[in-house]
Amino acid sequence: MRWIRFSIAGTPAYGILQGDRIVEVEGDMLGSWKRTGRTHGLAGVKIEIPLIPRTFYAAGFNYAVHVGEAARLLDHSPVLPKSADIGYRANNALIAHDEDVVIPCDATEQVHYEGELAVVIGQQARNVTQAQALDCVFGYTIGNDVSERSWQKDDRTFFRSKNADTFKPMGPWIETEFDIDAATTSVRVNGTETARFRTNAMIFGIAAFISRTSRYCTLYPGDVMWMGTDGTSPNLRHGDVVEVEITGIGVLRNRFVKATA
Amino acid sequence: MRWIRFSIAGTPAYGILQGDRIVEVEGDMLGSWKRTGRTHGLAGVKIEIPLIPRTFYAAGFNYAVHVGEAARLLDHSPVLPKSADIGYRANNALIAHDEDVVIPCDATEQVHYEGELAVVIGQQARNVTQAQALDCVFGYTIGNDVSERSWQKDDRTFFRSKNADTFKPMGPWIETEFDIDAATTSVRVNGTETARFRTNAMIFGIAAFISRTSRYCTLYPGDVMWMGTDGTSPNLRHGDVVEVEITGIGVLRNRFVKATA
Repeated sequence: MRWIRFSIAGTPAYGILQGDRIVEVEGDMLGSWKRTGRTHGLAGVKIEIPLIPRTFYAAGFNYAVHVGEAARLLDHSPVLPKSADIGYRANNALIAHDEDVVIPCDATEQVHYEGELAVVIGQQARNVTQAQALDCVFGYTIGNDVSERSWQKDDRTFFRSKNADTFKPMGPWIETEFDIDAATTSVRVNGTETARFRTNAMIFGIAAFISRTSRYCTLYPGDVMWMGTDGTSPNLRHGDVVEVEITGIGVLRNRFVKATA
Repeated sequence: MRWIRFSIAGTPAYGILQGDRIVEVEGDMLGSWKRTGRTHGLAGVKIEIPLIPRTFYAAGFNYAVHVGEAARLLDHSPVLPKSADIGYRANNALIAHDEDVVIPCDATEQVHYEGELAVVIGQQARNVTQAQALDCVFGYTIGNDVSERSWQKDDRTFFRSKNADTFKPMGPWIETEFDIDAATTSVRVNGTETARFRTNAMIFGIAAFISRTSRYCTLYPGDVMWMGTDGTSPNLRHGDVVEVEITGIGVLRNRFVKATA
């Protein structure tokens, strides 16, 4: 099932996407809800961020090639993570499918995409085993963990390297039936493929991250966990259009524009 | 004016605290509201977390003594921060005044308090100058940035060192009239003072953090920014009661208990 958050004339709503038709829903996607009689064509609505996370978790380094590439860019030796220590991103940075990533005027040319699987939590989880972990997952969407590498290298925190306004595109919708073992993540810049990797080739899998996190931090419905990326990115420039595709979910597309002030 | 969030028989509400009486309020503390005819004695209600932050910012190292002490504990050289780079904490960890901090069963003895001023944002702010910055502040409360130092030193992120469930006491209420230059932060463990510092002796002040953050990240009503701590903490043990007092705001008190499993 595909859950979509959308708006018509500025009024947001949830719906179930069937082909290119949206069946509008009343209630709480993560709780009780019912179908309304209203349907809309996908082409006639604005797609919104699928949900605003309660807590916005992110795995950081979780694929082997990216660990090596990041080490090169950030001037240190590649070190594979020893445990599934989850990190964080910030809600101010979220934008929807087809909204623009605005590169700050003082950013360097080293602005990169990171195409990621995003896990949406549907059930409260505390101290769950890896075998139990996936039971708390509601569905899956796509994230682009846009990063300014000079700031990532030099700043004490990720506040502007990864959490500048518009740096966290997420969407276009949430897929509840997803076969991660069959999935490939690919990224295209202006239509040309620049990255491709097996979505599940993670150093630590989703169950490992959920289980370990939940040993210390209760996960709640509406939390979101981004699972990291692999491969590399060219420097992105004004006007570039980046598409992150995960087979079985869809395509998250955003244009990059450089701020003038 | 003092804003308090409280509950009676599990039903939360906002009110204005006048002495030890609460005047219950309807509406949005950060928007439009009005007084109801209902009043309650402070002693008869449960004090709740004053608000759940939209984004939970934290300054990290922002006082000189703490930078040196942290460097000693974390085995690196003390380095004063070069700029007001804001960090983050997570909402799962928040608890209210008088609720218990639960030390995970596998934590070391190095569990410490950090008494902090917490700033509540009331107005949207993007690209504000330092002169404009304080105009977006709604009020001030108190935070205890509880930290497990061995995890802070060894883990790749702060997910359990600083964001384990119950590690972020905040409260007891929000004070909108606050003279930071007249304020002292002090911490008591079981009634004995163990830390005392001028609240405004920050390396970077509130206006500097708000201005710099807002250059990249829009601040929204309901965001909270914790301003860092000074001094040191003893190792806290099962049964210890920690009180963080900031003159002009109040006292945030929490008991520490060790989990058995």
